[in-house]
Amino acid sequence: MAEAITPRSQDFAQWYNEIVRRAELADYTPVRGCMVIRPYGYALWENIQAALDRRFKETGHQNAYFPLFIPYSFIEKESEHIEGFSPQLAVVTHGGGERLEEPLVVRPTSETIIGHLYAKWIKSYRDLPLLINQWANVVRWELRPRLFLRTTEFLWQEGHTAHATAEEAEEEARRMLDVYADFAEKEAAIPVIKGRKSESEKFPGAVHSYTIEAMMGDRKALQMGTSHNLGQNFSRAFGIRYLDRNNRLQYCWTTSWGVSTRLVGAVVMVHGDDQGLILPPRLAPIQVVIVPIYKEEGERAAVLDFAHRVAGLLQGRVRLRVDDRDEYTAGWKFNEWELRGVPLRIEVGPREVAGEEAMLARRDVPGQAGKWTLPVEGLLEGVSRALEDIQESLFKRALRFREEHTHRPEGWEEFVAAVEDGFALAPWCGDAGCEKAIQEETKATNRCLPLEAEPLSGGERCVRCGRPAQELALFSRAY
Amino acid sequence: MAEAITPRSQDFAQWYNEIVRRAELADYTPVRGCMVIRPYGYALWENIQAALDRRFKETGHQNAYFPLFIPYSFIEKESEHIEGFSPQLAVVTHGGGERLEEPLVVRPTSETIIGHLYAKWIKSYRDLPLLINQWANVVRWELRPRLFLRTTEFLWQEGHTAHATAEEAEEEARRMLDVYADFAEKEAAIPVIKGRKSESEKFPGAVHSYTIEAMMGDRKALQMGTSHNLGQNFSRAFGIRYLDRNNRLQYCWTTSWGVSTRLVGAVVMVHGDDQGLILPPRLAPIQVVIVPIYKEEGERAAVLDFAHRVAGLLQGRVRLRVDDRDEYTAGWKFNEWELRGVPLRIEVGPREVAGEEAMLARRDVPGQAGKWTLPVEGLLEGVSRALEDIQESLFKRALRFREEHTHRPEGWEEFVAAVEDGFALAPWCGDAGCEKAIQEETKATNRCLPLEAEPLSGGERCVRCGRPAQELALFSRAY
Repeated sequence: MAEAITPRSQDFAQWYNEIVRRAELADYTPVRGCMVIRPYGYALWENIQAALDRRFKETGHQNAYFPLFIPYSFIEKESEHIEGFSPQLAVVTHGGGERLEEPLVVRPTSETIIGHLYAKWIKSYRDLPLLINQWANVVRWELRPRLFLRTTEFLWQEGHTAHATAEEAEEEARRMLDVYADFAEKEAAIPVIKGRKSESEKFPGAVHSYTIEAMMGDRKALQMGTSHNLGQNFSRAFGIRYLDRNNRLQYCWTTSWGVSTRLVGAVVMVHGDDQGLILPPRLAPIQVVIVPIYKEEGERAAVLDFAHRVAGLLQGRVRLRVDDRDEYTAGWKFNEWELRGVPLRIEVGPREVAGEEAMLARRDVPGQAGKWTLPVEGLLEGVSRALEDIQESLFKRALRFREEHTHRPEGWEEFVAAVEDGFALAPWCGDAGCEKAIQEETKATNRCLPLEAEPLSGGERCVRCGRPAQELALFSRAY
Repeated sequence: MAEAITPRSQDFAQWYNEIVRRAELADYTPVRGCMVIRPYGYALWENIQAALDRRFKETGHQNAYFPLFIPYSFIEKESEHIEGFSPQLAVVTHGGGERLEEPLVVRPTSETIIGHLYAKWIKSYRDLPLLINQWANVVRWELRPRLFLRTTEFLWQEGHTAHATAEEAEEEARRMLDVYADFAEKEAAIPVIKGRKSESEKFPGAVHSYTIEAMMGDRKALQMGTSHNLGQNFSRAFGIRYLDRNNRLQYCWTTSWGVSTRLVGAVVMVHGDDQGLILPPRLAPIQVVIVPIYKEEGERAAVLDFAHRVAGLLQGRVRLRVDDRDEYTAGWKFNEWELRGVPLRIEVGPREVAGEEAMLARRDVPGQAGKWTLPVEGLLEGVSRALEDIQESLFKRALRFREEHTHRPEGWEEFVAAVEDGFALAPWCGDAGCEKAIQEETKATNRCLPLEAEPLSGGERCVRCGRPAQELALFSRAY
């Protein structure tokens, strides 16, 4: 037997690391802060990519690819931007055996180089809106890396759009936030809170930053995606202008938005349990694993034959694997595929062969309660329904968990207790100093100003300083 | 009218650059040697990726993602490898605001870092073969960049496999060469010659390198993909070992293989003509463009309506665009979509509306000869057949062109004339000095030793030095 997994309740961070490595999602490398995404983790990322890419294309975006390297001077052009990113940069100083005249930055994000090119491509209102997305790797130096959550190099997508009006840019930033929320809830089965970032938490160079925030299994928040209305900050820094219908030269209004391989970490932390991963069926690389069970050599041929017949009924309709390896026992395989979070297991043994049926076992419902038998005729229907049900159950469970650990504290003492337990929705004065004090005293940060919270009725006071509240804010400890 | 395109016969390199930029496949950037792949070019690359990725998965490979950065010391571990790559490296010396203790190389290829990780993952014969592919960006410093063909950063895939025996590694290297050839011929409509690289042309660290070589429109060769049997060179350098069935520790046998965005350049150079791109239907981002034609405002509504009805008949079955922009004339649109290489154009005007028919025009057959009319009923069938026929015609045309310009010279004078015109298949003594002399005197390099050439009958003499020939080699000027 393999070593037991650290329970979540004992040490969530340790549990996370063990699961990610033992399920072979990712591994450390000798390159400080950089991970390798192993085939099983990458297959999960490919499914995430496909679900997002489809949504990007449906909303009119096209993919492109911009350079990895950015001249150092470009990063300096937008003052907030360089301030935000300079401590995180990886810098190429030598190329082709020579010292470079100007160092090149490995992109931490691409607003600057894309801004330069948009200035070249955009001439008239006819070229707008320009709606481009890029799937790429980016580098932000990390001293305390964590697999998927915080690594020096990570994979992401970054959308960059240019518009004729401020309103259109704001609409775009909000539209893409909705796209992210839709993806998170429908595909990853993760309920999210959409909100605006406070001044001190927003993207360097943005006018407004929007975020989707989710509650992980340890009740901490994870920022799962962000969308920024950049106003004219980058268009002025890079000269992105267009001739309007009246032949006047105008600066464009731009946006950017991104999600990363961090989403894999979210899926692990929201749904996993002490046995391992639980993958939502829509994203699972393997949705159904078929495990043939036989004790005597005489049973083997009939059982394997039947297992492949069952597979044939599902092939092409569900992502499927028959684990017919002889060198492992059925019990070992059960553990292995539970660890790897396959949503549905089908067991076939001599009894199933005789009865022309299959035994199903849900990963999200442990023990006998999650098991039932289906006749092979109608199996595809039963399996499809089960997968849909698992998808829905995972979402509902995560939502219930979040709701149980979300509080509306009255006063400071309740607030402290609330962020100890999970999320606190609290009136806030809007002052960055107060935000900072809250963080220092409770380790909880201002995650966002939720877009869908009921407005303040008036008269509320800031949970910390007692001054009149400006907004309802979501505070939580976070990744 | 837009400026005329430089004819291919006048200046092929200039024609290529104009086409790539005017069709908006790619553009220069302020980062020396790095290009931006624009949406139309990237959509073409996405189709190339999909066609290859399907073949990789069908042959049992999985995708993964390895770090961008490689410790400098890793590159040095395999002596031929560092010798081959050191003049091309981009080096990160600073990260997170500090000078790094050990510089990091931006991967020029990933054998070394992957070798290190395989050594960690592979324990027993049960873990073999390990068949992994990566889609990634790589960097090799280029002083004379050319869009798609030779850029400092480029996108590619690199397969890396480990096997228990020398035979399996050799089989894998040859299998992937076949996969590349199948892709090139069936999807890109480009006939290729499969061959082995000579000692001096092979990959740094390989035992055997295989290549597919194609003839471009200027009769020069382009290496379109390579596959390497690395023997035990990297497994010994990185300690990639496994316990065999008899519990003995053995070194693995490894391979690597890759193709890049250079394939986009090949598609441009093989099929394009003086009007612009001609894209093979299987890879074309837009397979059919529908252009509504109307002169009077009164015709507009009926024609547009009909154009969208025609589109509805094809939607979901072919990649399609209706160009219903009012700000451009039909003539301008014809030129634009010819430049961009859309294989099939459908024109609909008042006459087509009245006759319930559509006028089709093939991009690969200019003028009236490529035009015909189809009734709207049965349009999908007619369009599908036309696209298949275009795909096949492009391949045949490229094959005929290559055959017309491939020679079997007898003696040095004929050889010089042959490589002046195109490809020369010639007996060669096998000596690197002779290869070098040929290059210096004719600019033709040894592209490969074709795998499917008939064997030498014996008695042949090297085309240059007259010593007994060892092999039949393909010589050509090349990109």
